[in-house]
Amino acid sequence: MADGGAPMAVDFRTEPAKYKHWKVSFDGPIATLAMDVREDGGLRPGYDLKLNSYDLGVDIELYDAIQRLRFEHPEIGAVVLTSGKERVFCAGANIRMLNQSSHGWKVNFCKFTNETRNAIEEATAESRQSYLCAVNGPCAGGGYELALATDWIIMADDGSTTVALPEVPLLAVLPGTGGLTRLVDKRKVRRDRADFFSTLEEGIKGQRAVEWRLVDEVVPRSGLEETVKRRAAERAARTDRPAGATGISLTPLRRAIDGGRITYGTIACAVDRGRGVAEITVKGPGGPPPATLEAIHATGAAFWPLALARELDDLILHLRANEEEIGIWVFRTEGSADLVEVHDRALQEHAADWLVREIRLYLKRTFKRLDVSSRSLFTLIEPGSCFAGTLLELALAADRSYMLDGVLEGDTRKPAAVRLTGMNFGPYPMVNGLTRLASRFLDEPARADDLKRRIALDLDAPAAAAAGLVTFTPDDIDWADEVRVGIEARAAFSPDALTGMEASLRFGGPETLESKIFSRLSAWQNWIFQRPNAVGDKGALRVYGTGQRSEFDRRRV
Amino acid sequence: MADGGAPMAVDFRTEPAKYKHWKVSFDGPIATLAMDVREDGGLRPGYDLKLNSYDLGVDIELYDAIQRLRFEHPEIGAVVLTSGKERVFCAGANIRMLNQSSHGWKVNFCKFTNETRNAIEEATAESRQSYLCAVNGPCAGGGYELALATDWIIMADDGSTTVALPEVPLLAVLPGTGGLTRLVDKRKVRRDRADFFSTLEEGIKGQRAVEWRLVDEVVPRSGLEETVKRRAAERAARTDRPAGATGISLTPLRRAIDGGRITYGTIACAVDRGRGVAEITVKGPGGPPPATLEAIHATGAAFWPLALARELDDLILHLRANEEEIGIWVFRTEGSADLVEVHDRALQEHAADWLVREIRLYLKRTFKRLDVSSRSLFTLIEPGSCFAGTLLELALAADRSYMLDGVLEGDTRKPAAVRLTGMNFGPYPMVNGLTRLASRFLDEPARADDLKRRIALDLDAPAAAAAGLVTFTPDDIDWADEVRVGIEARAAFSPDALTGMEASLRFGGPETLESKIFSRLSAWQNWIFQRPNAVGDKGALRVYGTGQRSEFDRRRV
Repeated sequence: MADGGAPMAVDFRTEPAKYKHWKVSFDGPIATLAMDVREDGGLRPGYDLKLNSYDLGVDIELYDAIQRLRFEHPEIGAVVLTSGKERVFCAGANIRMLNQSSHGWKVNFCKFTNETRNAIEEATAESRQSYLCAVNGPCAGGGYELALATDWIIMADDGSTTVALPEVPLLAVLPGTGGLTRLVDKRKVRRDRADFFSTLEEGIKGQRAVEWRLVDEVVPRSGLEETVKRRAAERAARTDRPAGATGISLTPLRRAIDGGRITYGTIACAVDRGRGVAEITVKGPGGPPPATLEAIHATGAAFWPLALARELDDLILHLRANEEEIGIWVFRTEGSADLVEVHDRALQEHAADWLVREIRLYLKRTFKRLDVSSRSLFTLIEPGSCFAGTLLELALAADRSYMLDGVLEGDTRKPAAVRLTGMNFGPYPMVNGLTRLASRFLDEPARADDLKRRIALDLDAPAAAAAGLVTFTPDDIDWADEVRVGIEARAAFSPDALTGMEASLRFGGPETLESKIFSRLSAWQNWIFQRPNAVGDKGALRVYGTGQRSEFDRRRV
Repeated sequence: MADGGAPMAVDFRTEPAKYKHWKVSFDGPIATLAMDVREDGGLRPGYDLKLNSYDLGVDIELYDAIQRLRFEHPEIGAVVLTSGKERVFCAGANIRMLNQSSHGWKVNFCKFTNETRNAIEEATAESRQSYLCAVNGPCAGGGYELALATDWIIMADDGSTTVALPEVPLLAVLPGTGGLTRLVDKRKVRRDRADFFSTLEEGIKGQRAVEWRLVDEVVPRSGLEETVKRRAAERAARTDRPAGATGISLTPLRRAIDGGRITYGTIACAVDRGRGVAEITVKGPGGPPPATLEAIHATGAAFWPLALARELDDLILHLRANEEEIGIWVFRTEGSADLVEVHDRALQEHAADWLVREIRLYLKRTFKRLDVSSRSLFTLIEPGSCFAGTLLELALAADRSYMLDGVLEGDTRKPAAVRLTGMNFGPYPMVNGLTRLASRFLDEPARADDLKRRIALDLDAPAAAAAGLVTFTPDDIDWADEVRVGIEARAAFSPDALTGMEASLRFGGPETLESKIFSRLSAWQNWIFQRPNAVGDKGALRVYGTGQRSEFDRRRV
């Protein structure tokens, strides 16, 4: 929430008919996403979205549009990102909005926009829906970072169009959406050039931008449209998406919020504000999956794995934005492991189908979103649960898991078991590029592979502990106390220390562009977002646009 | 400096006769470094160094001891780190000291201690002086992080000896010296176990510590000494260091400070507080290197490459600790490129010699220290300079370099040239594991190799620019203005934004344990060091030991 303002819940659900800021158009296998931000359409009062600058509301629409292009438009092989305004591409995140936002809001906003930029790159690489960018006017800060997320940047060579990252010189903060990392790690701009460019208010235009690898090509303004069309067509021609297929409809997501209870079809969440805990129960499938691929397509958004991805995604976003004081998310599942497993088999059997591919990728992105959420993740594995395959990822993503060994007195159900499926061995990598199993067994890289022999077996608590899949396995005597104490102790720690600790422990092993953005660049940005030089009374972010000059504490830290 | 206190210059130069806190003893090929901190021996007033807790002064001695073991004791193949106290190993960094320190002091302290831990690992891996740790009493926080830097941790199994990282639960900060990263990335402790361990005030002891990979072995207290001796002897037996050789003496470093002028034998530094700039001139060798390896040994600390390493190291540490407002370090060189090159050839020719190996490693560490310094690094390449080989690393380390194309009016010297030597192609990797050349040409990995064909050639400004070795090459008309404007603009930016930007741009490409510690863990720690939950009036770090309870803002960020 904004400092001092009343809490206003952010709803991440939207649909094209409600868009204020983006125009989506289609031309055969090419879609165009034109940014045309409505100045008075800010999510909150207090700022005008001038010069195609954006706030969270603009980005929520972008996120929705990207999702729909993937699911609803199998025929689209290339997407052109451009500006719908005459004289500007995009001025980046709105400064007044940032300025009136709390620290937490700024950080959460940057995280979501980062996730959306990553989704653009994933669509290009894995959905084979290739994004390119037509820079048709000045393109600064977050605007250029949006361009950087695409695979090919074409810039008008017209004297006024530039790319720029003016955050450091103008605002005393970093480009907040991966810009610095993408410069040196994705586009491999030479570091001294990246340094110079990132300190240049006015940016770089024309041929020098190409020589320095900041854009891929420049063309005269008059030829921009044609060149963009040609490049898009070339990319669309290389897709493996089926031109003649029919998309599915991402029907409105049903969600009921009643006090602390948030209910979806596949998830129930109880927010306990006193304890600072969200108790999240994921329900397994109600029955077997449709028998054929055609039937899966016909089921569409109601297909359990897709419904789960959408609902879990929405819940994570909701809790992150609207429940800042809920520091612990406790996951449970209930249902039939057999039914989860048979759904997982369907996801594997039809992996080559475009829609099933999209569903798998959506689940992957959603689990990644969970991994980078600054909340403590606990999983409780009890009788009646169905931690199999896709749902076992919730336990593997957790900072800590507790599995009841045996049953509580009076419970006549079978003791809890966990079950591996093929979906635990590849389709859901973390941001570090490893599966959660591989990240778990960095000490024995072969161990994750060995576990393939246990696929489809029910592992009770001793077996799961021996396999290294769960943290603790208390019996009925210790269960209630151990879980309670674990959660209470966690809730008593400093939220900030936990955030730094979790970010440091969750992603061992290799680093990727994504992991660098989330765990390195974001950490620096968060630090800078706290510094008086940016956000103090005389800080650059604070005085921007007021005519006052910023004043800096010159001590280097 | 401590908040509110008068500036007190820190001197990083010391020698064994002055040690207050460490006892060094020798037994054949085994040395023992026993930590025995003098409670009243703090670097500054206001805290007692109880329970073998440490401050910067304790770590300066440790750093010195490690350096001397390498250079003065070729016969030492294994080093045992242990405590000289009866009842405690080490309680970590002193909390009162941290508490009374400014943000900048805390961050700089952690950086130096991190560098020293990394040097312990490098000594084990590359000097073949293998560190092991005898944990002979409670070992918490920074104490355990010191143990983690060694190659083999032996813990007494005696009921009271534990290892612990209690920072998160007790102090609301992170372990500041690489602990979290070393847990999951070096020791590959399973992430959920690392999570549990890092939230446990009381730590873990005995066999469970071995099972969880927190230590390598536990032995009964009565057998500790013997086991440690045996392990150390095994390690010493595997070294390639020459048992019969004679070390060289690291003679006292001569340094004169006169107002803003700091003068060493090989370096002159002029601190311009008005502009916020340190103008650093490195002088090339005064003559050719000694003709034989024996003569190099006889020259000892006066051998130019070693003198350079020591003096540059000291200058970096001095400026970091004592000149916080000097945000830009401008490097120049003067002297003969031929003489630098012939010294580089000596370093290559005798690479197998233990002393020459140490000198190369020391230069490597010193350039790394430069890379991770939170200062803007500019290099000016002018007539009379000697940016060849080892000294060219100063230009390659820079955020930006300017090379004068031609000469200024009236200057009769030859135009500036830069020169590559074999030393630019391997011996000086950055913390990311790549040479500065490879880090520079991430876009064309073959390019650094191609440049080998240019070794020993003088490259003038156009040639250096074409080779990608320098950023800008203004001619005599533009030189003065371009350099002046570049520096003035830099000095006007927010120091914090520059720190985050430089940390993000300097280390493209792969990540290592070291780069993760400096660029990820440290960034999170810096953020947490700013947060009211740690350092506010009711923050955990602030109220620790006062009997008051900390109060946290529960919002997760």
